Amino acid sequence: MKRFVVRFEPEGKKLTADGGSTILDVSKERGAGIRSECGGKGKCGKCRIIVEDQSNLSEVSETEREHLTPEEINRGYRLACMASIRGGSLVFVPSESRLSVRKIQIHGMEQPVKLDPNVKKINLVSVLDRPTVQNPIADDVNILSNLEKVSNLRELEFEYELLRILPDVLREGNWNATVTVLDSKKIIDFEPADTASRVFGFAVDIGTSKIVGYLVDLNSGEVVGVGSIENPQIAYGEDILSRISYAEEGYENKQRLQNLATEGINRIIQMACEESGVASKEIYELTVVGNTAMFSLFLGIQTRYLHLAPYVPGVKFPVIAGAKTLNINVNPRGSVYVLPNIAGYVGADAVGDVLATGIHELDEMCLLVDVGTNGEVFVGNKEELVCCSCAAGPAFEGVHIQYGMKAVTGAIERVQIQPKNFEVKYETIGGSKPVGICGSGIIDVVAEMFKCGIITERGKFNDLDTPRIVRTEGKPEFVVAWKEETDIEKNITVSIKDVEEIQLAKAAIHTGCAVLMKKKEVTENDIDKAFIAGAFGSYINPESAKFLGLIPDIPTEKITFAGNTALAGAKMALISKDVRKTARRLSRWIRYVELMAEPGFKSEFVKSNLIPYKNLEGYPSIKKYLEENR
Amino acid sequence: MKRFVVRFEPEGKKLTADGGSTILDVSKERGAGIRSECGGKGKCGKCRIIVEDQSNLSEVSETEREHLTPEEINRGYRLACMASIRGGSLVFVPSESRLSVRKIQIHGMEQPVKLDPNVKKINLVSVLDRPTVQNPIADDVNILSNLEKVSNLRELEFEYELLRILPDVLREGNWNATVTVLDSKKIIDFEPADTASRVFGFAVDIGTSKIVGYLVDLNSGEVVGVGSIENPQIAYGEDILSRISYAEEGYENKQRLQNLATEGINRIIQMACEESGVASKEIYELTVVGNTAMFSLFLGIQTRYLHLAPYVPGVKFPVIAGAKTLNINVNPRGSVYVLPNIAGYVGADAVGDVLATGIHELDEMCLLVDVGTNGEVFVGNKEELVCCSCAAGPAFEGVHIQYGMKAVTGAIERVQIQPKNFEVKYETIGGSKPVGICGSGIIDVVAEMFKCGIITERGKFNDLDTPRIVRTEGKPEFVVAWKEETDIEKNITVSIKDVEEIQLAKAAIHTGCAVLMKKKEVTENDIDKAFIAGAFGSYINPESAKFLGLIPDIPTEKITFAGNTALAGAKMALISKDVRKTARRLSRWIRYVELMAEPGFKSEFVKSNLIPYKNLEGYPSIKKYLEENR
Repeated sequence: MKRFVVRFEPEGKKLTADGGSTILDVSKERGAGIRSECGGKGKCGKCRIIVEDQSNLSEVSETEREHLTPEEINRGYRLACMASIRGGSLVFVPSESRLSVRKIQIHGMEQPVKLDPNVKKINLVSVLDRPTVQNPIADDVNILSNLEKVSNLRELEFEYELLRILPDVLREGNWNATVTVLDSKKIIDFEPADTASRVFGFAVDIGTSKIVGYLVDLNSGEVVGVGSIENPQIAYGEDILSRISYAEEGYENKQRLQNLATEGINRIIQMACEESGVASKEIYELTVVGNTAMFSLFLGIQTRYLHLAPYVPGVKFPVIAGAKTLNINVNPRGSVYVLPNIAGYVGADAVGDVLATGIHELDEMCLLVDVGTNGEVFVGNKEELVCCSCAAGPAFEGVHIQYGMKAVTGAIERVQIQPKNFEVKYETIGGSKPVGICGSGIIDVVAEMFKCGIITERGKFNDLDTPRIVRTEGKPEFVVAWKEETDIEKNITVSIKDVEEIQLAKAAIHTGCAVLMKKKEVTENDIDKAFIAGAFGSYINPESAKFLGLIPDIPTEKITFAGNTALAGAKMALISKDVRKTARRLSRWIRYVELMAEPGFKSEFVKSNLIPYKNLEGYPSIKKYLEENR
Repeated sequence: MKRFVVRFEPEGKKLTADGGSTILDVSKERGAGIRSECGGKGKCGKCRIIVEDQSNLSEVSETEREHLTPEEINRGYRLACMASIRGGSLVFVPSESRLSVRKIQIHGMEQPVKLDPNVKKINLVSVLDRPTVQNPIADDVNILSNLEKVSNLRELEFEYELLRILPDVLREGNWNATVTVLDSKKIIDFEPADTASRVFGFAVDIGTSKIVGYLVDLNSGEVVGVGSIENPQIAYGEDILSRISYAEEGYENKQRLQNLATEGINRIIQMACEESGVASKEIYELTVVGNTAMFSLFLGIQTRYLHLAPYVPGVKFPVIAGAKTLNINVNPRGSVYVLPNIAGYVGADAVGDVLATGIHELDEMCLLVDVGTNGEVFVGNKEELVCCSCAAGPAFEGVHIQYGMKAVTGAIERVQIQPKNFEVKYETIGGSKPVGICGSGIIDVVAEMFKCGIITERGKFNDLDTPRIVRTEGKPEFVVAWKEETDIEKNITVSIKDVEEIQLAKAAIHTGCAVLMKKKEVTENDIDKAFIAGAFGSYINPESAKFLGLIPDIPTEKITFAGNTALAGAKMALISKDVRKTARRLSRWIRYVELMAEPGFKSEFVKSNLIPYKNLEGYPSIKKYLEENR
């Protein structure tokens, strides 16, 4: 097999690659950071690259001709997943195809908990006997029996590996030593001298698109470091289904996805450790949340049955495994605690949402919506909580939207349209020239288009006389940013198809809210508190969300943007054994509603497809606005 | 490094070896089966080999000249530990230098126990739900919740690795599956179909000189296979101290000894599996006993402090470790349970002795002696048990005895001397021509020599006119077998030095008995039951043992030869969780007496050095015999 050098611009990375592999393969394996949403199948058309001299590339394929205009092909555009290497090449990755630093919401709302971590260190300096001929007390008995005298720790056991070094460590420290106890049952570290002040844990949220974590001092419960990273699995598909399909193609793929999740976690552990001066071996426990698919891919659990009816998860209960077994770079005898799931599409991250918002303890009637590719909705309070999963799809993440993109630099994230002249004001992430539109931006655009009468409640374009409406192949598009303003030398527009995608996505979430509220026999007037959770949720304009009909018409003052409550929940579980018990109880207590099996589901979905909704009686504030302004 | 072929006769083994290595090195590493008691230091002189053509060997060393007569050197005798290889050689290993099949006592006395093993299999065929859209029950919940309904198993957890295959196995068996539960806590196997009848355990006794084991059907408690093997560590020293010293020379050595113990265990597991048609993966748990040193070497625990005052063991409590961690070839998620020790020189094997004889539950006053390199003595009953360790040394195993050898083919094991003419009748193991004397034989010889007046109570030779007493370098020796009768072309004799060694060894054990009996304020008349345990113990002639003063003067009908009670105890613990609790309790309840710290120890030892004892009042039956016959 011949190997060639491929140079990636503007980063200037030089990577060596086997002849015959695609540019996307090289990028995935060696990290050149090219976007891919379909996992390299030629479906999404997002891995656009520019190669001026194509003499060392394969011919332009039919698939590429479907995604690229003849003019683009003339200018050297290719799809990285289709162009394979026959020799050294120079590849330019345009900004819209770059995976770059994201706007990630790490912090979230959190409930106060009593500090009672699962890992504790105890110094033994004044506790141990010195053996004599009269009292030749065995080293393990010396430690365990004396520990019983000064603590409530009974029937402790040493992790086997520590027994090997026990006699030497005891004498190295001259009978001063520190034990690390896991779950009041097992001694997982044994160190000479007093190290009791150095005991840390790590809470992780494995999101479909990002992995974020907190490094926590278990003596104080304080966050001392933070890490966050794009989920490296993203190279094998942006949405869950692509990754599950990839995993099913073979054991190696499944293993690769598991390794990528592990590597991602190890990367953020390293970040947080470097930030705080903590050694990774001082971390003794991880708590992990994620949706059921991420949970399964991280643990290497078979995911095949998760997307076949009746959508049965392999594992629902919490999982405890050795950090070493999972290749997590913390103390080798450290432990990983993965919080329980609720159902096939309501994962441990949703349990985290509930823990962090505390809705299971409130008297008030609550609505909790975690907006994401797989949205989760909860309705209820301490009496009862019902939940469902809403397959919103990745439209809010920019997938299937012509100029959609993730919340990275250059994404349009805020949009306002002037009612009369349809002029547009927008803001981009990082303030740079726009390259696309991210989730909060697209919600704004569609809501504003409806508000200004550019589109109807069915998502059809009204016949208006404005240069902002252009036609491509006869189909109308609304220009959000003119070619001259952008960094991609094209108009950034929202097409009728984009509006449809957003309608479908918002309908999925709205249907979840509506079905659950009906189940609980409450209306939007009965909701005392609404929580919008999710890393992306925090950037949504609540007015736009209501105008679009993404959420019910609840007064803005009752809405709390809760941020990354999944991670906050994981952190609570990290510092409190009691929270774990609660999580376990919640995972069984919360009543899961399978929307597909609900009689009213289909008709509700059809009604929810309208903007904001079929029946404006449910949207009094919108109704009032429309009556006053149209 | 040049490599040469060395051929070992009479086995006909051809082994390749590096130039410069000794013949013993080759034998140790490649298994040619040459004895070595000092571990290859040129001290024991037991690794005698014959090489006729020595042109490819190193010159005869000074050390060899000390151990070999000039005539032997002329005939080609060498010490394998000193002769190093410079080219291809033909080595003859004479029978006295061969490690060969031993007469091993495997079975032992055993107490009946209620079957309640730590590992159980449960078939789930009529227990599981079939998931539906209305009840999309997660696979783990399906198993665990339904198990709770049909058993008393609560809060079970799956071993992490099994979660990975759970969904597939469940569907492969079409909702018929079998779980294997460890300690009512953890699921360690999950198989499609009904495998509930196939669940096995293995009980092991790691002796200093041999490793023996039982394969047990955990559904019935029956032994279905047996394995036994020379402890492969023996190549690094026959006694414990040689091995501990070897282990201390470096981490690699320690690791090598641990690996050898593991290999030995794996070998006997394989034997027992082949005998019984059991697959090694059907074995889910091992129970292990051994003296404290074997326990430590098997587990890789630091042994340095075990032979330095105050003789502190690193670990006394039971040890539980994964079979995989310890490289034991059974089910990879199987578990190893090592029984607790009592003290630095009273190990888990002694706990096994007590369990199997049941002396901790008897009303009668008991004496239990486990005769071995490290003897253990117990005195007491259910009210109280005291114990001590007696450093008898390896004389009873044939070490430090001129013609001493282990209980292998050709060893003289029974001896009678005619009172008047001192003619000798003997029996050998396997009935072949004698090559040496093993433990039971040497006890017989010395006892008979005393009985016939050949030696005094101090072990000195009386001046008798008989051809059976010959002199070597002026020192008297008693001829047990004439040159013509033997297979070694030499007289097999017992020297005054041999008698001294036996006196020291028996004094050690007798002192243990005497000190403990004094501690308990009992005399030989108060002993209701005496148990002689140990693989070697069963072959001792009780009359000889009393004449020698190895054990107190207890009527023979009160003496039980209990056999390998250590292994029997391990088996009891394998099939009963209750026995493990008892073992744990015993390890703390039994009162250990450190002989060195006892005020009367030294004078008792001096008295015990006489045959049978300083004061014949304690030996009424011997006293009577002597009065009548001398």
